Amino acid sequence: MIDLNEHTITAEVVRRWDGCADPRFRELMTALIRHLHDFARETKLTEAEWMAGIKFLTAVGQKCDDLRQEFILLSDTLGLSQLVVARNHSRPPGATEQTVFGPFWVAGAPRLPHGADIANGATGEPCHFSLTVNDLDGRPVPEAVADVWHADSAGGYDVQAPDWTMDQAKMRAVFETDAAGTVRFWSVVPASYPVPTDGPVGDMLRASNRPPMRPGHLHVMVQKPGYDTLITHVFVNGDRYLDSDAVFGVRKSCIGDYVRHETGRAPDGRTLDRPFYTLDATLTLARA
Amino acid sequence: MIDLNEHTITAEVVRRWDGCADPRFRELMTALIRHLHDFARETKLTEAEWMAGIKFLTAVGQKCDDLRQEFILLSDTLGLSQLVVARNHSRPPGATEQTVFGPFWVAGAPRLPHGADIANGATGEPCHFSLTVNDLDGRPVPEAVADVWHADSAGGYDVQAPDWTMDQAKMRAVFETDAAGTVRFWSVVPASYPVPTDGPVGDMLRASNRPPMRPGHLHVMVQKPGYDTLITHVFVNGDRYLDSDAVFGVRKSCIGDYVRHETGRAPDGRTLDRPFYTLDATLTLARA
Repeated sequence: MIDLNEHTITAEVVRRWDGCADPRFRELMTALIRHLHDFARETKLTEAEWMAGIKFLTAVGQKCDDLRQEFILLSDTLGLSQLVVARNHSRPPGATEQTVFGPFWVAGAPRLPHGADIANGATGEPCHFSLTVNDLDGRPVPEAVADVWHADSAGGYDVQAPDWTMDQAKMRAVFETDAAGTVRFWSVVPASYPVPTDGPVGDMLRASNRPPMRPGHLHVMVQKPGYDTLITHVFVNGDRYLDSDAVFGVRKSCIGDYVRHETGRAPDGRTLDRPFYTLDATLTLARA
Repeated sequence: MIDLNEHTITAEVVRRWDGCADPRFRELMTALIRHLHDFARETKLTEAEWMAGIKFLTAVGQKCDDLRQEFILLSDTLGLSQLVVARNHSRPPGATEQTVFGPFWVAGAPRLPHGADIANGATGEPCHFSLTVNDLDGRPVPEAVADVWHADSAGGYDVQAPDWTMDQAKMRAVFETDAAGTVRFWSVVPASYPVPTDGPVGDMLRASNRPPMRPGHLHVMVQKPGYDTLITHVFVNGDRYLDSDAVFGVRKSCIGDYVRHETGRAPDGRTLDRPFYTLDATLTLARA
């Protein structure tokens, strides 16, 4: 069609997808076009603002490499990731809720026996973790595979060290639940931390006066055939950033009590003469 | 706020811009978030589709370099560029309309006298261009600066040659209108051509079964103090792609008659013994 104006152009752009053989791709693209055009019309987007957007998106793409995904970070900080997660994992009442996967999981973490100390020299106060995996009827789920990973007391993940390889793994491991549905291990208390702010998303957060902080949390992924894979966090109850997670990942069913003990007997029978923490959390799986 | 779900999350993400000191930035970002979230909800975007989108946008960013702007190409092929151009240059009836700038203009093109042949060896059938710049009252606009640039008979621009520098300029120049508001020069007839399809936007067009073609056109930018700078094309009337420009740039007031002559006397008095074309076009400027 010739002679498009700002009102007629959207229908014409949508029409160009008439020949698309994949109906779902067509549905997604035409919905995207309608929203993109409505955004520009509603905001009366100027050419200078359009160019600023082009430059921002280009910088986001160019910040990405094998270990950094700035577009996921953008999606996270705009709440899109958590929206998509929530939409695709609406679980029955009582089941533990899904949160964002985040960028720090790595395939091939060491498979360890219960009781192992996965801190592997990481800094922080020792914490004994006990995670019990149940089904919705409260029955334990044995032989489930539980990936765990988290940050140290400075808010850093092992993979953020230069030239990191898996033989330097800290604060990450894979366990299997026992007959009681439980995994137990030692590590350190995970601290709150900022999302990476040295790229264009950091510029966006600063321009918005938005804190980049995430509350402290343990990441857990639990997989067992027959169950909806659970990707979630166990957030530190009382963390000052619970209410303002930069990536909107906090759900009520994902908060755990990291209990401080000055000294004394730990759940595994050991006696500690320095302060330590214990976390006892229950993760409830829904059927697939 | 804790315990966001797919319905409550949007208000919370918008609320996070409450502390933004720049009201326009806040307006743009919150409108963007609302549309982005509505898009995901309406389409029931899956996690796999979300990840495909992340990978696509990353690839678009990584295709960009000093000579290639794949995000502008994406904006062009989604009709956003032309929408923004149309919105920001709604001109009074009678004024020549604005179209997309495109990626092939380069600063510093040679300033040439009227009558020059700017083809500079480019392939194609010779064409005598006569462009008259008027105001809305039909009065000529002298001493306006007119940048012109276009593709050859194969649809290629000079800048697409490897290691191109301005001393190899072809089919681009800068003229000044004379007392009659006119500039005259020789070049070749611009052919239709595909937008670059060797990147992710090319993949998108193929997946959509959308032709990548643009109808043949001369680019013109006319600048004179006191007038709204005009960035437009003079499209080749009769081109088979006028109705399906891949970047939605065709406006009725931007089509010109490129008239074929078998042999004979050209407008500058020269006699040609081979076929040639003439274009006589009027560009009407609106006041700034």
